[in-house]
Amino acid sequence: MAQKPALSKGTRDFGPLEMRRRSFIFDTIREVFRKYGYQAIETPAIERLDVLLGKYGDEGDRLIFKILNSGDFFSKRGKQVVFPEDMEKGENHFASLISEKGLRYDLTVPFARFVVMHQNDITFPFRRYQIQPVYRADRPQAGRYQEFYQCDADVVGSDSLLFEAEFIAMYDEALSTLGLEDFTIRVSNRKVLNGIAEAVGQPDRFMDIVVSIDKLDKIGKDGVAKELAERGLLEAAASEVLQLIAFEGTTEEKLAFLEKAFANSETGKKGIAELREVFGLYQFMPRFKGKVEFDLTLARGLGYYTGFITEVVSNEVSIGSIGGGGRYDDLTGVFGREGLSGVGISFGAARIYDVLEKLDRFQHISPAASKVLLINFGEGSRKATMEMLSQLRKAGIAAELYPEDAKMKKQFSYADKNAIPYTLMIGETEAESGLYQLKNMSSGEQESMRPEAIVKALEA
Amino acid sequence: MAQKPALSKGTRDFGPLEMRRRSFIFDTIREVFRKYGYQAIETPAIERLDVLLGKYGDEGDRLIFKILNSGDFFSKRGKQVVFPEDMEKGENHFASLISEKGLRYDLTVPFARFVVMHQNDITFPFRRYQIQPVYRADRPQAGRYQEFYQCDADVVGSDSLLFEAEFIAMYDEALSTLGLEDFTIRVSNRKVLNGIAEAVGQPDRFMDIVVSIDKLDKIGKDGVAKELAERGLLEAAASEVLQLIAFEGTTEEKLAFLEKAFANSETGKKGIAELREVFGLYQFMPRFKGKVEFDLTLARGLGYYTGFITEVVSNEVSIGSIGGGGRYDDLTGVFGREGLSGVGISFGAARIYDVLEKLDRFQHISPAASKVLLINFGEGSRKATMEMLSQLRKAGIAAELYPEDAKMKKQFSYADKNAIPYTLMIGETEAESGLYQLKNMSSGEQESMRPEAIVKALEA
Repeated sequence: MAQKPALSKGTRDFGPLEMRRRSFIFDTIREVFRKYGYQAIETPAIERLDVLLGKYGDEGDRLIFKILNSGDFFSKRGKQVVFPEDMEKGENHFASLISEKGLRYDLTVPFARFVVMHQNDITFPFRRYQIQPVYRADRPQAGRYQEFYQCDADVVGSDSLLFEAEFIAMYDEALSTLGLEDFTIRVSNRKVLNGIAEAVGQPDRFMDIVVSIDKLDKIGKDGVAKELAERGLLEAAASEVLQLIAFEGTTEEKLAFLEKAFANSETGKKGIAELREVFGLYQFMPRFKGKVEFDLTLARGLGYYTGFITEVVSNEVSIGSIGGGGRYDDLTGVFGREGLSGVGISFGAARIYDVLEKLDRFQHISPAASKVLLINFGEGSRKATMEMLSQLRKAGIAAELYPEDAKMKKQFSYADKNAIPYTLMIGETEAESGLYQLKNMSSGEQESMRPEAIVKALEA
Repeated sequence: MAQKPALSKGTRDFGPLEMRRRSFIFDTIREVFRKYGYQAIETPAIERLDVLLGKYGDEGDRLIFKILNSGDFFSKRGKQVVFPEDMEKGENHFASLISEKGLRYDLTVPFARFVVMHQNDITFPFRRYQIQPVYRADRPQAGRYQEFYQCDADVVGSDSLLFEAEFIAMYDEALSTLGLEDFTIRVSNRKVLNGIAEAVGQPDRFMDIVVSIDKLDKIGKDGVAKELAERGLLEAAASEVLQLIAFEGTTEEKLAFLEKAFANSETGKKGIAELREVFGLYQFMPRFKGKVEFDLTLARGLGYYTGFITEVVSNEVSIGSIGGGGRYDDLTGVFGREGLSGVGISFGAARIYDVLEKLDRFQHISPAASKVLLINFGEGSRKATMEMLSQLRKAGIAAELYPEDAKMKKQFSYADKNAIPYTLMIGETEAESGLYQLKNMSSGEQESMRPEAIVKALEA
């Protein structure tokens, strides 16, 4: 009868230690969001398919988990919904007959839906953050899961570039507080890429240029040149593109260089002006450990970004981007509310976890649930033991009593295996004298102490 | 093109204020779990259907959301999976061809799977808590949702009744800390119901008796009598059952009464002995505002409980149970690991939310994201304003700057609508003098203060 249980492919369990480390990551990011005035919201995992489909491209649509309608879909309200001939009409048609709901694919589309549905209760600009899992029917592979957390902050309803500057500062503070020592916050503006397309005389090839440059990290300069050629860009234009993005220098030098190159591109000039303003505002922001850099090669893929774009990489561990975001001029138009600009960032919590783990920077996170295990000596000292237990918990100290008066060896082994740092012994003699034995499990040291002193020692 | 967006039936969004209130509830419960040595775990929302099906009865199986397999299910690996004749074979057969995964229905079955899969890494007794949404394809109605949070603590791998006593104390502390003033933690033991079945000479009618008594609150004494009769219980036995559970008195009187009635029921006597031990251990636990009561009429429905059972009700708002739980002798047997006893409790977070809201006990939770809005006076005082902003955030105070130097009226209205309690004005004059204007938005009072004093005032 009994079955051997298994996880669904591409999903995973989080045990207690992973949970504590992950909570540290989420709590740290959340605290930065809070200080900058961002408010939490949550949206349901289950959304209508008409909300989800058509928002992420064909590939995205394919990766949306669809939920089977409940009830009898051969005879809905006495009427058959699916007929053999529906099988002939293909997958999508068939699925549309038996499925109306899906699992959220990201947090941005649900947020746009939220804003439009609640627009009368919202005062703009509206800052929100959202930390929830998303679901993708992707082929599972190392480091790629079908369920994973996203951790987004966005503001909607303002064109002010103050938010861009604050997002840079928020990345800096959150990642530094998490324990990253060396990371770069790359910044650019989609209008700069427009400017490049215009500067090389190929304004209508903007997306081809974006998509090609986006692959620079993976395929190198020659690869991008090849890609641009394949996409039908003239060789002269392609080589001009590569020359422009190859420019090296300080942020100010890059801005000045492009300003010149964009003499005939209004959009390009606007992009440079926006970047200048962002960097200008960022001057007033607090500094932590991150480097901030205007990156001419930053493209941020096929996204719907229209202005500011950003991406964060660790310089200690090579793992791809650990965060990214940007501005989109029309966040909510697809749901019928036009003209609301949005800008936001996302933290790649899973990758940040991997970076911190590789660098062994989780040491400050206790592997133990409880700070102290009270050894169970049975009836004889039960009252004293239970009173001590209550006193510890009252002081906020996580404490547990071994549930049976088992052999000492077994009780100590339990403390050991659970990495509980202290054990407390209150036998009959101790109960009478009021002096209890506190043992430091790593040093082996043992001390006779009064209850109040024990609370103080463990509170520290 | 634009569509009017909607939520999927039976799901909901949580806005910022609801989120803050809900976080207060979860954080409070979590803190109690932590102090008692419970550790967080998380399991995926998506589980294999063979893990989920057959664990919740036929009705439960029907309420499990099934996820459509990805890819082409008419030709999987070049082979058609579904044929027209499969439609004839009914819903379940058809669904099994196109769906292998579902959404978790509760947190107990995933926990049992977790324990079996990770048994080699776990030191028993293993205390875990889990706060995650669950999904049920239930017909949506007022107060019943298809996605809702469960909030469970369980310990597995110990028969010690210390855990039962601690769970009572945990309910008491958590619910009192949340702001409930009057609530009752009802306690009983399934073996007492076995004893009743045996005492009235109908030991094989245990489940009929459980199911009938479980309806007492809804259908009253006469209803239970009718139900017992319909289930084929002899009239004499049914009336004896009703007589037994009608006994009133103190917990000690009830225990003594049943002990006599169970003279010939070993199981019944064992139930009474277990209850005596639980109440005995509970004597040593800290007390808050809850009443603890041995409730002879407690049955806890069709659950798999075999020992201790408990249920919590508010005496201030009539809303049904706000928590419940119990012990099951064999938690993990269904997944191939026999003999592991488990005991746990669950908090009905949504109902607790409703109770606190009805009693207006969320006043201490600020409706505002930020503590202070800095009024934007533009370039002239930008430096001073931005420095103040950084200083506030550095002190942990949630603060925001209005993103544009809009009209005063607009900026103040933003603070008002967002319930931000303070505004801070730093114009050019203030920037020069170093004396800034802090305004209390509810009293209208305004004071000239130095930056350090402002930080202190807002920290309080």
